[in-house]
Amino acid sequence: MTKNVRIVTPVITEGIRTLDDLAPFERADLTFSHSLLQVGPSSIECEYDEALAVPDTIAKTIMAERDGADAVVIDCMGDPGLKPAREVAAIPVLGPCETSMHVAAMLGHRFSIVTVLDSVRPMLEDKAKIYGVYDKLASVRAIDIPVLEIEEDMGKVQRALADEALAAVRDDKADVIVLGCTGFIGCADAIKSELARNGYEVPVIDPIQVTALIAAALADLGLSQSKTTYAPPREKPIVGFDMPRQPDAAAAE
Amino acid sequence: MTKNVRIVTPVITEGIRTLDDLAPFERADLTFSHSLLQVGPSSIECEYDEALAVPDTIAKTIMAERDGADAVVIDCMGDPGLKPAREVAAIPVLGPCETSMHVAAMLGHRFSIVTVLDSVRPMLEDKAKIYGVYDKLASVRAIDIPVLEIEEDMGKVQRALADEALAAVRDDKADVIVLGCTGFIGCADAIKSELARNGYEVPVIDPIQVTALIAAALADLGLSQSKTTYAPPREKPIVGFDMPRQPDAAAAE
Amino acid sequence: MTKNVRIVTPVITEGIRTLDDLAPFERADLTFSHSLLQVGPSSIECEYDEALAVPDTIAKTIMAERDGADAVVIDCMGDPGLKPAREVAAIPVLGPCETSMHVAAMLGHRFSIVTVLDSVRPMLEDKAKIYGVYDKLASVRAIDIPVLEIEEDMGKVQRALADEALAAVRDDKADVIVLGCTGFIGCADAIKSELARNGYEVPVIDPIQVTALIAAALADLGLSQSKTTYAPPREKPIVGFDMPRQPDAAAAE
Amino acid sequence: MTKNVRIVTPVITEGIRTLDDLAPFERADLTFSHSLLQVGPSSIECEYDEALAVPDTIAKTIMAERDGADAVVIDCMGDPGLKPAREVAAIPVLGPCETSMHVAAMLGHRFSIVTVLDSVRPMLEDKAKIYGVYDKLASVRAIDIPVLEIEEDMGKVQRALADEALAAVRDDKADVIVLGCTGFIGCADAIKSELARNGYEVPVIDPIQVTALIAAALADLGLSQSKTTYAPPREKPIVGFDMPRQPDAAAAE
Amino acid sequence: MTKNVRIVTPVITEGIRTLDDLAPFERADLTFSHSLLQVGPSSIECEYDEALAVPDTIAKTIMAERDGADAVVIDCMGDPGLKPAREVAAIPVLGPCETSMHVAAMLGHRFSIVTVLDSVRPMLEDKAKIYGVYDKLASVRAIDIPVLEIEEDMGKVQRALADEALAAVRDDKADVIVLGCTGFIGCADAIKSELARNGYEVPVIDPIQVTALIAAALADLGLSQSKTTYAPPREKPIVGFDMPRQPDAAAAE
Amino acid sequence: MTKNVRIVTPVITEGIRTLDDLAPFERADLTFSHSLLQVGPSSIECEYDEALAVPDTIAKTIMAERDGADAVVIDCMGDPGLKPAREVAAIPVLGPCETSMHVAAMLGHRFSIVTVLDSVRPMLEDKAKIYGVYDKLASVRAIDIPVLEIEEDMGKVQRALADEALAAVRDDKADVIVLGCTGFIGCADAIKSELARNGYEVPVIDPIQVTALIAAALADLGLSQSKTTYAPPREKPIVGFDMPRQPDAAAAE
Repeated sequence: MTKNVRIVTPVITEGIRTLDDLAPFERADLTFSHSLLQVGPSSIECEYDEALAVPDTIAKTIMAERDGADAVVIDCMGDPGLKPAREVAAIPVLGPCETSMHVAAMLGHRFSIVTVLDSVRPMLEDKAKIYGVYDKLASVRAIDIPVLEIEEDMGKVQRALADEALAAVRDDKADVIVLGCTGFIGCADAIKSELARNGYEVPVIDPIQVTALIAAALADLGLSQSKTTYAPPREKPIVGFDMPRQPDAAAAE
Repeated sequence: MTKNVRIVTPVITEGIRTLDDLAPFERADLTFSHSLLQVGPSSIECEYDEALAVPDTIAKTIMAERDGADAVVIDCMGDPGLKPAREVAAIPVLGPCETSMHVAAMLGHRFSIVTVLDSVRPMLEDKAKIYGVYDKLASVRAIDIPVLEIEEDMGKVQRALADEALAAVRDDKADVIVLGCTGFIGCADAIKSELARNGYEVPVIDPIQVTALIAAALADLGLSQSKTTYAPPREKPIVGFDMPRQPDAAAAE
Repeated sequence: MTKNVRIVTPVITEGIRTLDDLAPFERADLTFSHSLLQVGPSSIECEYDEALAVPDTIAKTIMAERDGADAVVIDCMGDPGLKPAREVAAIPVLGPCETSMHVAAMLGHRFSIVTVLDSVRPMLEDKAKIYGVYDKLASVRAIDIPVLEIEEDMGKVQRALADEALAAVRDDKADVIVLGCTGFIGCADAIKSELARNGYEVPVIDPIQVTALIAAALADLGLSQSKTTYAPPREKPIVGFDMPRQPDAAAAE
Repeated sequence: MTKNVRIVTPVITEGIRTLDDLAPFERADLTFSHSLLQVGPSSIECEYDEALAVPDTIAKTIMAERDGADAVVIDCMGDPGLKPAREVAAIPVLGPCETSMHVAAMLGHRFSIVTVLDSVRPMLEDKAKIYGVYDKLASVRAIDIPVLEIEEDMGKVQRALADEALAAVRDDKADVIVLGCTGFIGCADAIKSELARNGYEVPVIDPIQVTALIAAALADLGLSQSKTTYAPPREKPIVGFDMPRQPDAAAAE
Repeated sequence: MTKNVRIVTPVITEGIRTLDDLAPFERADLTFSHSLLQVGPSSIECEYDEALAVPDTIAKTIMAERDGADAVVIDCMGDPGLKPAREVAAIPVLGPCETSMHVAAMLGHRFSIVTVLDSVRPMLEDKAKIYGVYDKLASVRAIDIPVLEIEEDMGKVQRALADEALAAVRDDKADVIVLGCTGFIGCADAIKSELARNGYEVPVIDPIQVTALIAAALADLGLSQSKTTYAPPREKPIVGFDMPRQPDAAAAE
Repeated sequence: MTKNVRIVTPVITEGIRTLDDLAPFERADLTFSHSLLQVGPSSIECEYDEALAVPDTIAKTIMAERDGADAVVIDCMGDPGLKPAREVAAIPVLGPCETSMHVAAMLGHRFSIVTVLDSVRPMLEDKAKIYGVYDKLASVRAIDIPVLEIEEDMGKVQRALADEALAAVRDDKADVIVLGCTGFIGCADAIKSELARNGYEVPVIDPIQVTALIAAALADLGLSQSKTTYAPPREKPIVGFDMPRQPDAAAAE
């Protein structure tokens, strides 16, 4: 019984994610699929961007379940739409922020997040509070490079990430580093090596890879989100959004 | 220098709010104005409803500032869109959930929220954590009546609210009651009397009234949200939403 | 129905407060009145000073209600006597420390207090814990100038405040500044401008102004402290204090 | 080097405390002395009573040190005046609320306080927050008998205490019981036996006895309160209180 | 590159665990192996049992790594020896208590643990504090059946578990259930069905299955515990324990 | 009724502790006795060392009670075996980490621990969480000198401790210093003087002295650990440890 994990990238920017990033983790019984938004922002760097990404992220989650996916991963460290998407899905829906934070909390005493812009720090700290792991958060640090400029100079990004990660370990006493943007995929090893070169043997978490494999594990285990927390929405008039129907409802028509 | 507070009701349901509810608080130097969504749900009872209410709530906030309003109040206890709306506005934007919780925290040792459905309890508890007043929250209780049925039998709603408020005071040791839905406007006095009849002299907070007057006070004081927390969104391509531009940007065109 | 807010300055020092400071906020339906202690210290800078200020602060609160005031504001950031004064009053009694902290918590992610002496830091941090907003407190910083020397060189005070406010925003990641002494009245605008000049658009809260207007709003709303938290004291023999009686008790004689 | 611990009973009621209560704990090198207020309330049951007890409690603390006492214990579970008294003393000043809570926290997973009136619950919970042990507090329960009626029917008081202690252990999962009024002295053994008869081997803390012996231990160890937290008050004009001078200041005259 | 996860059952009781329990989760690239203690207790129900289980659990962890295992799972909800075992291993070492709590925290608003005896409640609550997820813990409930009696009447155990799980969901507002003993393996489905029959669609976590698959995921990802939190022990004289050497040290001989 | 406090030093290193260190605190009615491990590590600097120290620490606790001791103090800041030792004893068992933290919490606003190696910081912070005083912990600082090298150059150790203590007070705003290793006995006065020379009148806690006297006080008061938290272990087969029997069980044979 092969499992398929759907990666929903909650922006409209073609090419920002390819499944090559996850190819090393495919197995005989595990495949990945992908979808991008048709409606929403080109990148997510604040609450406003996130708000406009959510409606189509929900729609793409419903479509993933209708397509037969076994789990959904929302491909952004802000976990946009995680909670409403869980309401409309029976399959597990995971966010890389929540998942990475919990895995980081398991691997060491405290963790730091190294992210794009300082303006997302309040959002990440608030999420740590809601996810219940705020006591394990050492700090949030930023390299001050906008999301859409990340791919322009990967070397510069990587050096800036390594610098901030080292400061987090040295000054903030972080024991684990979480990369704070799913666009940093592929940078973890280099940062880990740089930390080791400075005497710190510290895990560096690539959020999208971790979340994809945890999602697969939950699907294997038959576990999904609680329906007392994430009850299906009641039917009611809605104007301006043509949301797809959930598989059960669609089947019943 | 008269101040105008714009009430943005984040649903599409005509008649669910009239400014009559705030008429007693108008003054020579304070007026209220109102807007309703064109795009969104007919009521908000879960994260999904909230997600679909947010884009047009943001738009209506921008329009309020362009219309010359001095403050915006989002008229729903879920505070939908509060954070992104603050990013796009220079004038203060307030949510009744955040505001009521802070006022309740000032009036007594602990407060309880009495709301519509138990399914919104996780959301309200999470908001208390983010707003920083979770230690003051005694409990969230529900009367199990959906939002759109509230007006059908106001007597029944009021009795159910009084029962839960009394249980909150007696069993959960609440010292202040917050009505957990802006649709409960007008019920506070009856509940307060019922509590007093049982020997408990306890304030009952009507969230929309409190928030409207606190918003007016902030406008008078020249205070608004911090722009280090709520920085204006960066310009970037967005598809599918025709958002109005902020006053400054509009003026610059 | 005009409302009157009584400002009780809990020290014996003539001239330390004039109602001119609040004149800009008077309205057709809002006036301010003032009283000073006859018994107590000349300034409040530690728990000892506060302890000696409390008995007459309670007395002045009772007198305010007997005079027909609609709300009382205790004019000191230590909120001396706030809790006992609430026990003896039916009208709302507010403290600038509690009120400013809650308003600051609403305006941004975290706030810092900039105050007179580092020796009051423990007291302010403890109050943040009791008021329930400790998670939102970024730091308490001091300019190391005693209260009674503030008026000697307002320019120096203002520069020191701006320096510490800037350090709070830059180093402690504060998003909102609260002036930590009611003697700093009138300094907020200059500090806000200085922060803006350094690129930080951050609200600066003048505690006595904010508290006066929030008190007026509560009076307008008919809200006051909970009597389950602040029950009236039982009658019992007391020696050495000639406390005035509450209006009801006085009327009953 | 014999040590003397001064018990300061912060009320004016003659006979409410005798040193017989501590006689079993006297040793060759440990004696107890006692003082009562001349100015203040006859019992302490709310913030108002506490406020009027504080000035003379401070004075009695200064006199204790001038008399050569080695430590001071404030004889009331509200710890009235604990913080200002520490500012004016070089010798350790202890409160039974703070001390009992910390000892209780050491003896078991969580503790409950069984006290006189439910109206002091907010005060005790707030103190647990400030003292840093709120996470260890299971509950505060009350027998609803005013302080001055305790001695009228000790049998009734003891039965009521045992009932509430049993409910705390059974329903609130308390592992340690703290008697919540220093007037309950002598009741601990009977309550402990009653709990044991119900199958619960749980320590019952008599706050004044515990605090007296911990105060003696601190005096033996040469430990006292930190002067960075409790700095001596600055000299300044004060009207209406004729406070004694601290030993050093008095000696310098 | 097939991965092997070693299950270390930290008791001496033959037959209490067989790999059949994990057979459904084996894959082409994932196998499980098992070891039992030679030295230690027959079951773990208190801190004393746990203390005597730890030394050989550490030894078995070292042997697992020397045998080429890719991850270790300690097979007991007390996570005995988790921290020292992480110090002596380069491969990831996981405990079912820590792992289940974090997964439960991801699946719903709050979770409850249903365990064997009430005497382990303090230990589980303390672990939730250290693991950083205490805010997400609704309650710990016990069926009051000792570990070694579980297998005597599996039907009775399952009914008792379902009863307590239902009480947790209904009365404690739990959204996720964690089985609080690795001896409850195989019970999750029946309890989940019983909850569903009562109207609650709530995930039930089998701790050993979840932990085994999360361990496999971490091994696939190349992630292991931080060596700043879990530094290797310094060499020093030790008497009475003949601990095996870590693979590197053993190879160097 | 003379009391005897047994100091159990949980390592095998002869001479690391002599009762001379406690001689100044002996009284007519208070004596100290001592025991060392036969089985365990030569020093404790990580979780691994601690794990191997625990079994014989438990045995030595049982023997202390059989010898007629009135209280046991475990002589290591990691409090190794504190919880299991409490399960097997009726007399009070205290750990210097727990006891020092609670006493420090009573003496000032926040405390810092100055210890041997940074690698024990996570363990000390976790203990502060479990003991319930994490909010009062300002910082943990280390001098980076291993335990077994402390006696080699006491002057160097003392200077390093004074430097870190000063940094804790100045930079981390600590109000009380706790020496973080029981090997630092005798250093407190010198550090206190050095802090005073820098203008900080701050208590410095010698953990083993404080704990010994608090243990004596509890013995005098007839207080011991709660048996609902620390229930005696159930009888069951155990292999590889020849643990002594508790006094009652031994007597019954």
